[in-house]
This record gives sequence, structure tokens and C-alpha cells, in this order.
Amino acid sequence: MISKIVLTGAAGRLANHLRAPLAKICKTLVSTDIAPLQTEALANETFIEADLGDYAAVKSVMEGAEIVVHFGGHPDEKPFDEILHANIIGCYNVWDTAYHAGARRIVYASSIHAVGMHPKTEAINSRSQHRPDSYYGLAKCFAEDMAKLYWDKKGLEAVCLRILSCADVGNARAVGSWLSYGDLVHLVERSVDTPVAGFSVIYGVSNNDRAPVDNSDAAFLGYLPKDNAEQFAAEMFAKDGVLDPKDPDNMCHGGPFATTDLGESGVAKLGLKETKG
Amino acid sequence: MISKIVLTGAAGRLANHLRAPLAKICKTLVSTDIAPLQTEALANETFIEADLGDYAAVKSVMEGAEIVVHFGGHPDEKPFDEILHANIIGCYNVWDTAYHAGARRIVYASSIHAVGMHPKTEAINSRSQHRPDSYYGLAKCFAEDMAKLYWDKKGLEAVCLRILSCADVGNARAVGSWLSYGDLVHLVERSVDTPVAGFSVIYGVSNNDRAPVDNSDAAFLGYLPKDNAEQFAAEMFAKDGVLDPKDPDNMCHGGPFATTDLGESGVAKLGLKETKG
Amino acid sequence: MISKIVLTGAAGRLANHLRAPLAKICKTLVSTDIAPLQTEALANETFIEADLGDYAAVKSVMEGAEIVVHFGGHPDEKPFDEILHANIIGCYNVWDTAYHAGARRIVYASSIHAVGMHPKTEAINSRSQHRPDSYYGLAKCFAEDMAKLYWDKKGLEAVCLRILSCADVGNARAVGSWLSYGDLVHLVERSVDTPVAGFSVIYGVSNNDRAPVDNSDAAFLGYLPKDNAEQFAAEMFAKDGVLDPKDPDNMCHGGPFATTDLGESGVAKLGLKETKG
Amino acid sequence: MISKIVLTGAAGRLANHLRAPLAKICKTLVSTDIAPLQTEALANETFIEADLGDYAAVKSVMEGAEIVVHFGGHPDEKPFDEILHANIIGCYNVWDTAYHAGARRIVYASSIHAVGMHPKTEAINSRSQHRPDSYYGLAKCFAEDMAKLYWDKKGLEAVCLRILSCADVGNARAVGSWLSYGDLVHLVERSVDTPVAGFSVIYGVSNNDRAPVDNSDAAFLGYLPKDNAEQFAAEMFAKDGVLDPKDPDNMCHGGPFATTDLGESGVAKLGLKETKG
Amino acid sequence: MISKIVLTGAAGRLANHLRAPLAKICKTLVSTDIAPLQTEALANETFIEADLGDYAAVKSVMEGAEIVVHFGGHPDEKPFDEILHANIIGCYNVWDTAYHAGARRIVYASSIHAVGMHPKTEAINSRSQHRPDSYYGLAKCFAEDMAKLYWDKKGLEAVCLRILSCADVGNARAVGSWLSYGDLVHLVERSVDTPVAGFSVIYGVSNNDRAPVDNSDAAFLGYLPKDNAEQFAAEMFAKDGVLDPKDPDNMCHGGPFATTDLGESGVAKLGLKETKG
Amino acid sequence: MISKIVLTGAAGRLANHLRAPLAKICKTLVSTDIAPLQTEALANETFIEADLGDYAAVKSVMEGAEIVVHFGGHPDEKPFDEILHANIIGCYNVWDTAYHAGARRIVYASSIHAVGMHPKTEAINSRSQHRPDSYYGLAKCFAEDMAKLYWDKKGLEAVCLRILSCADVGNARAVGSWLSYGDLVHLVERSVDTPVAGFSVIYGVSNNDRAPVDNSDAAFLGYLPKDNAEQFAAEMFAKDGVLDPKDPDNMCHGGPFATTDLGESGVAKLGLKETKG
Repeated sequence: MISKIVLTGAAGRLANHLRAPLAKICKTLVSTDIAPLQTEALANETFIEADLGDYAAVKSVMEGAEIVVHFGGHPDEKPFDEILHANIIGCYNVWDTAYHAGARRIVYASSIHAVGMHPKTEAINSRSQHRPDSYYGLAKCFAEDMAKLYWDKKGLEAVCLRILSCADVGNARAVGSWLSYGDLVHLVERSVDTPVAGFSVIYGVSNNDRAPVDNSDAAFLGYLPKDNAEQFAAEMFAKDGVLDPKDPDNMCHGGPFATTDLGESGVAKLGLKETKG
Repeated sequence: MISKIVLTGAAGRLANHLRAPLAKICKTLVSTDIAPLQTEALANETFIEADLGDYAAVKSVMEGAEIVVHFGGHPDEKPFDEILHANIIGCYNVWDTAYHAGARRIVYASSIHAVGMHPKTEAINSRSQHRPDSYYGLAKCFAEDMAKLYWDKKGLEAVCLRILSCADVGNARAVGSWLSYGDLVHLVERSVDTPVAGFSVIYGVSNNDRAPVDNSDAAFLGYLPKDNAEQFAAEMFAKDGVLDPKDPDNMCHGGPFATTDLGESGVAKLGLKETKG
Repeated sequence: MISKIVLTGAAGRLANHLRAPLAKICKTLVSTDIAPLQTEALANETFIEADLGDYAAVKSVMEGAEIVVHFGGHPDEKPFDEILHANIIGCYNVWDTAYHAGARRIVYASSIHAVGMHPKTEAINSRSQHRPDSYYGLAKCFAEDMAKLYWDKKGLEAVCLRILSCADVGNARAVGSWLSYGDLVHLVERSVDTPVAGFSVIYGVSNNDRAPVDNSDAAFLGYLPKDNAEQFAAEMFAKDGVLDPKDPDNMCHGGPFATTDLGESGVAKLGLKETKG
Repeated sequence: MISKIVLTGAAGRLANHLRAPLAKICKTLVSTDIAPLQTEALANETFIEADLGDYAAVKSVMEGAEIVVHFGGHPDEKPFDEILHANIIGCYNVWDTAYHAGARRIVYASSIHAVGMHPKTEAINSRSQHRPDSYYGLAKCFAEDMAKLYWDKKGLEAVCLRILSCADVGNARAVGSWLSYGDLVHLVERSVDTPVAGFSVIYGVSNNDRAPVDNSDAAFLGYLPKDNAEQFAAEMFAKDGVLDPKDPDNMCHGGPFATTDLGESGVAKLGLKETKG
Repeated sequence: MISKIVLTGAAGRLANHLRAPLAKICKTLVSTDIAPLQTEALANETFIEADLGDYAAVKSVMEGAEIVVHFGGHPDEKPFDEILHANIIGCYNVWDTAYHAGARRIVYASSIHAVGMHPKTEAINSRSQHRPDSYYGLAKCFAEDMAKLYWDKKGLEAVCLRILSCADVGNARAVGSWLSYGDLVHLVERSVDTPVAGFSVIYGVSNNDRAPVDNSDAAFLGYLPKDNAEQFAAEMFAKDGVLDPKDPDNMCHGGPFATTDLGESGVAKLGLKETKG
Repeated sequence: MISKIVLTGAAGRLANHLRAPLAKICKTLVSTDIAPLQTEALANETFIEADLGDYAAVKSVMEGAEIVVHFGGHPDEKPFDEILHANIIGCYNVWDTAYHAGARRIVYASSIHAVGMHPKTEAINSRSQHRPDSYYGLAKCFAEDMAKLYWDKKGLEAVCLRILSCADVGNARAVGSWLSYGDLVHLVERSVDTPVAGFSVIYGVSNNDRAPVDNSDAAFLGYLPKDNAEQFAAEMFAKDGVLDPKDPDNMCHGGPFATTDLGESGVAKLGLKETKG
């Protein structure tokens, strides 16, 4: 049994789903966020409020960590300064303090937006070149490259989960890109329990008929999603109507992020209310 | 709902299976062929007799088309002049008139014979080089390259279906290459309802245990075949006996087309009666 | 029906599971080994004792063979001289006598150890470069290259089965690498009944959630494993505890063979008793 | 010494440069075109007027041909019907009659426009996918695929020369894409004298500092260009001024062909007078 | 003639060599650094002292820039905070202000250390995956990905020069990795005068016999280095003696950076005095 | 200066050219062969007669070796037993005794025949798959894989020189495949003096216009051949006349070895007298 897992961004939408499953596989779960948890702490869960951009704060959270599940940071495009603070400096703080605390692996919420400018008609895989669509995506690229550095030179493992769309299916794109909460939990569990991880990249997407990715290079991780957004296809296609294929919003893996201005919310463009996650 | 779909080759064996399913997803289905339809027109179906090689005739068929499902042309090897008329000039006529009519996508019955000279022991994928085995296959290569041109320069989408063997399973090769009519219908439906298609290539083959292709690059299309020719394996292998692996008929993806003389029917070599389709 | 199948290493652990299934699909099964069979010969099975390193002996075994299923030789790392005799000279003897006897195909028990030094975080496929982890693996590389030579120049077909771990699941690695006996039988059956094989490489592994290979290039063979070692995951991971990912034993496809000294048993390192097979 | 070479398009600008060099290496040079030669016939040269689109005419030109150097057809974008006649039907006529006449190789003036929509910032090579920028380029794709078919099935060799810009250096693009007449002659000579050619693709470009291609896959042909358009760089860059890199005319290998309308001259867009060749 | 070039890091060792050549090809050269220039300003050169980490300061330097040659920032490994300030935030400041100032291209001093952990026995090319060896290299990865983002979304061109070793040849590694000042100047000139650049990566290394890179993908840039460190080979090899090939310092492209601790100078390990550049 | 170099096959045609150059760069050169040297021993050269197939004999030759240049073994196709003795067991003996003697690198005379069945119209490179054309080539494949094993597990470096045709230019094929003695010496010198080698593969061919290989992956070795067989082209092409491109002798990299029977001399087929080397 894992001695201690640190979960960052624990008050966020996605990480909130991870608290209970992670708590079951470790002695101590340390949850951290700048905001309070959405629900009361679990029996073996400790909450520590901390700003990811504050090295000392993060360092004290990491004490004794064996595994870090890093879901903290802005979950959407923001002006560069905000991305810099939480998503770039924040990632450095997590990796460097985790390494010094003796952690052996980081499971990281990377994103499709690290490769969002690639056309959807070509399946992307673990070796696809970085091609960010936003500062948000750029920070994911940075974290992935840093993860490779700490693995190569320090032996700190990392599983980079390039999550597509972990939210309710609300548009045509999500019929291919949906990641259900159930599959997210399964993906994180496998990333934690795999005997070795080295430096790995895997796409976080459900077993959708139209999932536009190829995860075969990360076969060893054993990620087998079960949910399928095809059930929403008819409704979403009817709602969205005909899409212009020359519009990068429709053609690129990154969806609306492909055309928003740098620093402007891509989530808002979808007509969604941004929620922490 | 799609305003108008034009189906070419509608009197042919394959396209005949598409009439009812396509009629259900559009207001008007315009079916065209040089021969009369095999069965009475459906409620929202109009039949127009037209020769694909006649630009003016094709142009008038295309009026108002939103989607074109292009299955017309010779379904087997023929002397070059016949291929030229129906399959080369015919394709140009379809693409150019569809573009000028304002259509947004063509779903095209391409063929394994566009890449038929590749050895079967190497799975072929959407990026495999053209390697035709006949004038028939060469015309498919031409149409695919033209499809790419109209997509790149005009924004007219195309899904090129490289169909393997859409016919009764009658020999050992078909145990791997069979495409059932049910899976054909599903493939065309997904090619029509996918929100974007750009220029795509996908192999049309059922969920056979021994299907010798890799469709992972076209994952976004969501083609999930259900039928499996393995049920016929024992009978077909017994019938065909031991095959010479150095004979291109057996080793190449194109099967008997790999050794017929140019201009001579490959279908006939299989002992099948050629039927329109 | 196949006239005659020759099964080498028939007294070994793996080949013993093949005797009954192979006997069913041929008129005569000739089983050979240096040791007596584990059980009485089947109705249409003849046993011939022979040393693989003895050309004349192997030649007389091969008489009339149509298909050879070659599972003989040392199943573990040994000093070079022993590997040379049984696994290198032995393979030459099998290939050359099979060719002269008019056999048309050899199904060969190659091994993951032909590519054992590759990292597990990168899925290996049929085109991965040789990278042996032992003399044992080196002999498998030799046999595969010889198989390619006899196919290219003599038309003798070969299916090289790179078997991962065909043994009880007894450690964390095997949760990904297990090949059940049932799936082994299925794999050999497909390698025998496929109409053409040319020169092919395929990984022999069950349908494990965490199987670290990509068999898509050998899709035409129709190998569809059914068993899944995931049922043993919790127990094995608990037993093995945390693994050092910088230790090649854990990171490399070859497992413990990646760090044993040349000539020393890799199987022994696993705490398993070596058994013939 | 070669018995007979047939040179098509002999009255054209490019082929005119080939007459004398080809005449030196064969007993008989048969030059053909729809227009009269630019200069008097050479000692061992016979001129035959013929329309490439006329099978019978081409057939009689081919009689006894050992090598065909096929430079005929429209050298610029034209309406489809004109391309069809001279460049598609014309190529079929050349290949089929050459085969029946017993010729052993065709050296073909293909073009960069067969792959003109690829971005210039990625070097293209012999295996780059077709991506035509015009009907003209599409016809080159067709001829290359046909050349592969006749090689695979009939053993007729072909060297496809993807010529970039064989004309005076008159703009910034040509500083990279120039092919001098001297290098053209050398390229054709090597394509003729190479002991084997099979089916080959090679880019026809001079030894320009900025040539945006990679010919390493065709190394066996021994094409070593000598001229270098860098001498014109300063003048051309000054003349053209700053170029918009998002304009396909500037970014794509095909240059101005990337944005002309289908059927409209790309050469004219360059402000050049089209001349036969 | 270029209206205005901004040169950052102008007081540094490398950029100092660029001042005169750049001054010749523009009306105004704006040189900037946190330290004073090494020599008096040239006739059309203006020096502005500015800290790259200060957005407002950089913004005012960029006013009216047409081309930016960005050589500023720490030229060696440093603790993360220092790299963050000058090399990460600094790069953002340069790209964002250059874009808003209407600049059309940035020529960037990236580094071999962005891919320094790759083994030297495999030539690296423009498509090699990022694999940094230090925070310094990680910041180069960040800047390259940001460059791709600004090109994809804003049309701001970038040429990323992955410089190997632009310093006196002082050890065995530099016999392969040397970039002479003359070749550096030529490389920057070509990066500036190329008509289009899009997003490009090219290795900055002289024409050394043993240069371990493959620049063929960036052929269009026309970089043709002239110097050759082979002249120093005998002396350097004698000085360094036998090197352990299993030591990453010797085997990896990044040389000594491959084993220094994060944050510790790699240049110092070479026994060189770090100088600005 | 290297303390001791061991040169095997020293009485052979090729290695004889290496004696003097190697003697210059080491204190002691130990030359070994089963036959006496062609010329008197050099000042610092010791000759030891030894059979490569005799482990004890080879072991005593290796004593104190720092670098081994392994050119011994049959230089042509032979019956399998002879290849086994000298080229397979011989290579094992050399690698294993060299390792135990503390040698740090082996420079090995591998051969084009390890990849001889690939078509010449596709340039081969360091990563091309093994595809032997003879037992001779198969033994080269074996030695290369063994070299990789000793590098991966023991740190013994190896440079595998895939020599094309190191002999007088006597036929059309050699115009592309010639390796001059001067270039051979240079290639061996660079393989010896390169600071690191790891496991490397490089083609040994002169700077022929028509050399059908791509050595770019081994750029770090700095092999820059100077001779060019183009001087012999006219004479050889005239002598050989028209070649059938469908004949593997002409189309395959291995030349006549591609069609000789296994065990029969390929050199003899060329009409050359086999000489030791």
C-alpha cells in the first residue's frame, strides 16, 4: 500500500472525483488547493491550503509523498502571467519539491492542448510533436519536457495524461473527445499502480467510437476506457449543425482553443461556465 | 437533416444497399445511374439517368447537392478507354460539378486496388503509398489525388473508402478482405455524419479476424464494423487448398488483380459473375 | 488436411500443449525431442528421438514434412556452446532439412528476448530492431534472420512467434507479458492455417490489459487472444512491491534477462524452476 | 550504344536542350511533337509530328524504341479537358505503346506540382505523398502511379523527374527551385545510363544553396548538379521584397500554382510568357 | 533593406559577432543587453539597456522592429529562478512584444541542450523530440514551443538555431560540435534573408567532419558552413585521452550538461570560464 | 597512443592494407590469421597464427588488446559449416575474448550482404532491417546483433562497417558499390579514433556518384571518402551491356549474391578469383 499520495488541485472539478479512489489505495492522502475542498475531508485525507506558485508552501505539502497526482493549476486559457504563476512555476515547484521529498512518480494532468493545432483527421499518438494552441497548452508542453528532464536525470517517473474533454458532452466535438469521470478514475488508477512508468504520455479519452487518438504506444499502462459518447452523437450533431471544416475550431484537435486569442478563455467560447478543475 | 444527397451508381450492387439508409437521413435523395434502379424509387428518392462521362448530365444531377455518395463507374478492370470514360473523366465530372453546385462532401468508393501490389504480410494504412494493380486501381489513385486537390484548394471534403471485397465470401482471400453489406452501410453513414472529414482515407473491411489493414489513422471517423468472415474460414480454406505464397494473387492485397493482364477482368478470375456495383 | 506436421521440442513444456491440437489438423504428427514425450503418443503421432544439433538425425525426422512447428532448443539462457549447439546449429538444421524435404512453412518459437533490451514504455512491433538480451535472445535473432533468408531465396515461409512469458503468472512483469496455454494454441493454429505467411513476426502474448506490444502489422494472421492476466494484478503487485524503474529488469521488455550475466539463467532469477519447453 | 531513343515534346523549351545530348548516345533519335522542331534535325535525328493524345500516332512513333524520354504535354496549368487530352491520355498512350514496342525504360518529366501543396519548410523526398496543386500536377500524379503499375506488372522501368523550375531565375522562389539546362541534361543522362532504374522518383533541381528537397533516396542514380542560383539571390530578394509566409504562393513548394484557380495558368501569374517546353 | 533589426544579448560573446554584419543589412540596428556593449556602437546602431525579464522595457526596445535576433538570456545552466527570469519570462516578453510591434520574424539562439540527452551515435534532426539536459535546455524547449504557437496562431515567423558549441575548440567533443563565429554569422544571415521561414529548426554547427546532426529538413534555409574543426582533432583527442562511452558526458549530444546537477554550470565542468553570450 | 591493436584476418586482401596505418597509431600491433602474412612484419607488429574458430587460440591473441580490428573469416559465401566455424563461432570467440581481455572497442568488417536483398532503388541506412542474401550475410547479421548485445550489457563498443565492394572495379554494379583501399583505411582510422562509438553501423563505400546508401545516421564518425568510381562508369556499362532490372542480381544491393544458391560463391559468379580478405 502506498504510504502517501499528494493530490493537487483537489478542490477542482476533476480532482474532486479522484479523492475517494485515491484515498482507498494509500495510507494518507494529502489534498491541496488554494480553495477549500468541495466536500468534507475523507477519513485518511488531510487538506492543506497552498498556492502552487509558492515553493515553500508546496515543499511543505510534499513532505513524505510517495506518489503525486498533479491536477492543480488553471484549467483553461488565461493571460500569460496567470499561466506562468500557477501552471509553469507551479509545475516546477511540484516537480522539484516532489523530487527532494523522495517521491517516485508524478501523475500529471496534461492536456490535448499541448498538441491542439494538429488536424483531427490525423490520429495523434504519444510521439506526436508538441503543437500548443494557447498559453495553457504551452504550459503543458513545458511540464512534459520538465517531466522528461527529471526522469532522465533524476529518475522521477511521470505519466502525462493528455486529457481531451473531461466535462459533460455538450457539443459535436465532445462526441469524439469526451473523457467520462469513470474513465478518468480508471486512467489515474492505472497510472498509479503500473509497476513502472518511466516517462510516458497517454491520451485521456473514453472508449468513444470517434476518439481521434492512438494510445498504442502506451499499451503497457493498461488503460481500457469503458464509456462511449456515441450515445450523445445524434443530439449533438443536430444541435451544432453543419460545421465548416476549414475552421480550425472544427478541424484541430484543440477545438475552440485553436482560434481564440492568446490569453482568452477557450472554455467560454464553448458557452460553458468555467469551473475549477 | 441533410437537404439533398446524390448517390451515383445507384443501380449497382453496392449502392443499391445504400439507397434506403441514405433516404432516411436526407430530405431528398437523388439516385443516378446509366441503368434503371433495381427496385422502385423510395418516397423521397428521385432517379435521374445519366452517364458519368457526360459533364452536362452530371452537372444537372448535382444541382443542390449537399453530400455526394459516389459509387458509380466500372466495378472491375476494363480496357483503358472504358476506365477513362467512366472512372477518370467520370470522377472529374463528379468532383467539379459537385464543387460548383456547392456540395460540401463526397463519400467515394475507392478500392483496395489503389494499393493492391503491396504484400499482405504488411498491414496497409491510410498513409500507404499508392501502388495500383490495374487500370481500375489507377483510376482510384487518380480520384483520391483529385479529392486531395479539391480539398486543399476548394475546401470540398472527401472520404475515400478503400473497399476490400464487398461480395459473398467465396474464397480464402475474402476471409480477410470481406466487407459485409451491413458494415458498408455503417461505414457510409459514419462518413456522412462525421462533423468534419477533410481529406480522409479509410479501409472498408468488416471486423474479420484476419483483416489485413490498420485503420487507426482514421479513428476520428468512428467506423466500427461488426461482421466477421471467420465463420467461413474452414470452408474456404478447404476449398482453395494450399496456396503458393510467391504467387502475387495470394501474397498481394489486390488478390487476383495482381496478376491479371492490364485491361482484363480480375473479378472473372475469381470465377464470379461480374454484376453492376 | 495437412499431410504431415513435424513438432520439435515435443517433450518440452510449451510444445506438449501443442501435440493434441496439431494432431487434429494433420494426417501424421511427427513429434521429436531429445527426451521422451511427457505422455503417451496420440493415435496419429509418431515420436522420433533426435538431437537438433545432429543434421542427419534432423534430416530423417523431416522426411515428408509439410509444416514444421519448431519449439525445440534450450528455453533459457545457457553458456554459448550449449546455445550454439541446440539453438543456432539446431535452427540451421531444421531450416535446411525442412527446405530440402519440401516443407512449405515453419512456425517458430522465437522470443521477446530477441528484442529484450528495448524499454517497455515503448510498445514494440513487428519491425522493431533486434536488440537481444542474452545468447538465448541472440540465437532467436539468428533464426529470424535465417528465416528471412530462406523465405527470400527459397520461398520457405516462416511465422516467428516472439513469445513473452508462457508460464504461470508469478510476478508483476507477467501481468503484462503472460501468454496462456490456450492463447498459445490459438496462435499456433492461426500460424498454421493462414493461407499465406511469407516471413512474419508476431508477439505471443495474451489479451492482457497491460500487454506492451503492438501486433497490428501482423493483422492478417488473425491472432485474437482471449485470456487476460489482469486477474492476477493485485496479488502480483502486492507480492513484488515497489520496483526500481531505472533497473533494466523492470524497465526492459526482456525482464530479468536484461541484467543477468551472459550465459546465466534468466529463468532462475525469477525464482522459477526451469522446465523443458 | 542505345539503338533508339524517342524524345517527346521535342519542340518544347526543355526537350530542345536534350536533343543534342541524347543524339550522342544512341544510333537513332526519334523526336516528336505537335509543333515543328526549333532547329533543324540532327544527323541521326528523325522528326515525326504526332499528337500525344492520338494512340495510333504515338504507337507508330514508338516503333523500335529502347528508351523513351517523355517531355511532351502542356507545361503549365490548363483547363481540365486540355490536360486530359495531352497529359493524361497522352501519358497512357506513351506508356502503353512503349511497352508494346518493347522499350525498357521511360524517363519522364514529372513536376514539383505533383507535391506542390506541401510546405517548403519541410524538405520533400522521394517518398513524400502526392499533393497536387493543379490539374497539371494531378496529371503528373497520375503518370507516376501509372509508371509504378507498368513497372510492377510489366517490368517497364521509369525515372520520374520532379522538375522544380527549369527557366531563367526571375523571382525569389527560383533561388531555391532553379534547375539549369546543364543540370537538366546531366539528370536525363544519368537517368538513361543508370544500369537499373526500376521505378524511381528524383527531384530535378540544381545545386542551389537553398534547394528545398532531399534526393538521398535516389542516391543510386548519381545525380550531381553543378549550378547554383545563389548568384541571383540578392537581386531576386530585392526585387520581390518581403513575402507573406502565410500566403501559399510563398510557403508551398508549388509556388504560385498553390493559389491560382484550377485551370488557370500558374506560369502567367509569375509574369512569364509561357513557352512550349 | 530591412527597416529595423533588434538584437538582444548584444553585449554577449556570440551576439557581439553579429552586430557588424546585421548593421550592414538594415537601416537601424537596435542592440540591447543588461550590460554595456563590448565596443562602441556602430554608425546605425542604437544601444538600449534593458532587462529581458521586464515586459515594459522589452516592449519599448521592440518598437518598430521588423526582425528580431534574440540571443539574450543566460548562456549556461543556472538555478531555476534565474533561468525563469531571463530565459522563460524573457522569451515570452520578446515574442509577445515583437508580435505587438509588428515584427515579422524572430531568429532565436536555441541550443543543442534542448535535445541534449539523445545519444550522439544517432544523428539528430529538425524533428527529433525535445529531451532537455538542464533547466537551460528546458527553457530552450519552452521558447521553441512558444515560437510554434506564435507562428501557428499569429503568423510570427521563427528560425530556432540549435547551436552546438560556439566557442574555441577545447575538448574532444567540440571536434564534432564546433560552430565557428564565421559560420554563426552566415547562419544568422541566411535566417534573416530567407524569403520565408515559417517555424523552422536548424542545428548551428560548422562543416566539421564529425558534426553529429542532420540538417536536411531545413535545406530551404541554405545554410552552408565552411569551417571544419577536424584541424583540432589530433590535439584534442590526445588531450582528453580515452573516454568512457557509457558516461553520458561523452555519449550524449549535450556533453557535460548530461550529468551536471540541475542548476549547476555545465560550462564550468568543461573548465571554461563562462563569458556572457 | 593506443597500447595494443589486434588485427584479425591480417593476411587477407583487405586487412593487409590496414597493417601499416594501424601500426602507426599504436604501440603494438598484433596481427593474426591462419595463413602467413603477405609481407614481412612491421617494426611494432607481431604475427600470431591462430584459427578464429579456436577459442583458446583467439584468447591468447587478445591478451592486452585495447582495440580489435576484426577482418578475419571467409570473405565470400561458403557452405554453412565453414561459415559457422570461421564467421559465427569465430565472431563469438573474438567478442568474448576481447571483452574478457578488457578491450574497449571492436571495428568489424561487416558487409552489404547483411542487407543484400533490399532493392537498390531505395537507399539503405544504418537502421535498415537485416535482410541477408547468403549464409555469409547471415553471419554478418549474427555478428552485428552480438555486437549490440555486448555493447548493451558489457559496454564493449563496436563499429560495424558494412563494406560494399572493396576490390577492383570490374562490373557495372561496382560503379556504385566500390570502396577504394584508401577510403577503407580512412574509414578504419575514423572508427578507431572516434572518441565514442557505442554500437554503430556505417556503410563502407567510396565517394562514388552512384553510391546507393545513406550514411547520415553515422555522421558523428566523420567518414569522408575521397575516391569515386565514376571514372570507370563508361567502360563498365559498355562491358556489361543492358541489365535486366527484374533480375535480383541487378536490382538488389547484394548483387550476384542475391541469386546464387546458398553455399555457393557469389564472388565466383562475378568471374573474379576469390582471394583471402
